[in-house]
Amino acid sequence: MKLYSYPTAPSARRARIFLAEKGLTAEIEDVDLRSGRHLEPAYLAVNPQGLVPVLELDDGTRITENTAIAVYLEEIKPTPRLLGQSPLERARVFQWNARVELEGLLPLADRLRNSHPAFKGRALPGSVGYEQIPQLADRGDDRVKRFLRTLSDHLTGRDFIATDTYSLADITGIAFVDMLRMAKLEMPAELAPLRNWHDRMRARASYAA
Amino acid sequence: MKLYSYPTAPSARRARIFLAEKGLTAEIEDVDLRSGRHLEPAYLAVNPQGLVPVLELDDGTRITENTAIAVYLEEIKPTPRLLGQSPLERARVFQWNARVELEGLLPLADRLRNSHPAFKGRALPGSVGYEQIPQLADRGDDRVKRFLRTLSDHLTGRDFIATDTYSLADITGIAFVDMLRMAKLEMPAELAPLRNWHDRMRARASYAA
Repeated sequence: MKLYSYPTAPSARRARIFLAEKGLTAEIEDVDLRSGRHLEPAYLAVNPQGLVPVLELDDGTRITENTAIAVYLEEIKPTPRLLGQSPLERARVFQWNARVELEGLLPLADRLRNSHPAFKGRALPGSVGYEQIPQLADRGDDRVKRFLRTLSDHLTGRDFIATDTYSLADITGIAFVDMLRMAKLEMPAELAPLRNWHDRMRARASYAA
Repeated sequence: MKLYSYPTAPSARRARIFLAEKGLTAEIEDVDLRSGRHLEPAYLAVNPQGLVPVLELDDGTRITENTAIAVYLEEIKPTPRLLGQSPLERARVFQWNARVELEGLLPLADRLRNSHPAFKGRALPGSVGYEQIPQLADRGDDRVKRFLRTLSDHLTGRDFIATDTYSLADITGIAFVDMLRMAKLEMPAELAPLRNWHDRMRARASYAA
């Protein structure tokens, strides 16, 4: 297997952490997003969306979208389970994975990409150049702050985001929280449950992936 | 089981179609979004996000987020398979479900909710009132038009969006295409593969769910 990736791209890191937690290895091919290699014909032939990650199987089949990559890897290597054991656990993993993505990661990307000069004319990832919308950065800021509180409240008395064990939802949570720094946002000091969860995540070997 | 729903909410319809395709029945409780019942304390106690759908199990356990509801129902009633058979099929279903959601439904919601007077002060669904951002409606419009072409091109020579059989990705596609009318957008006449797919979807009994 090969993973098209980039070291600082939160989406690609989610796939790398998933692989690491599964004990799977893939050849990593970094696509230099800073120099725009993801928008060149060679990479657009790999993924017309111009996005990482892409998981390429040995027969050349390509899978995009983090959740799809996770579902595939869980099928080919079921243990350790990262998508839940029982029907209800599985529901909780997908539920929280979706919430962290829709209420955390996407608003944070709105905040970062619509305000930082580096993303001028590239307010959305991928192959189409969109101008920044300053009001969207403001809305993203408000939504991120709300969701940080929601997530911290949810983590009160819990070790992991979705179930009693580590799961895909925690991986998406790591990508979200670690992206705060890119957006020059701080995790509020009073959110102790979230901070403690993040400390536990950082202690895992997969965190360095 | 009980489903908190609303007839015209695309997100709730996705869950109703999924139930219908599975041959499952749930008590439907409509939450009147127009009169704001979803923002009243009684419903916020059911779902603090103020969103439909919510699947409530007989023991009172509640599941939110369409993908999570689908994953749960697939586990408790595996046939007919709506999330794919093989590992690769499962990946394709989640991949296309994510794409239709992120590149189709969300931009279309941006387009509709940031321009239509009915959504003034409610540019995002849920319990927080956000002002409309006209530029976001314009961006949504552009993204929707691009994705309609992408989806139609993808459907050339295919019967279904993700695999050789009907799946969750088709359900999300139906919600997307049918939401065009709400936003007063038309499916371009030249997108024959998409139109033909939509005709096939409309012929299924579950379409009326």
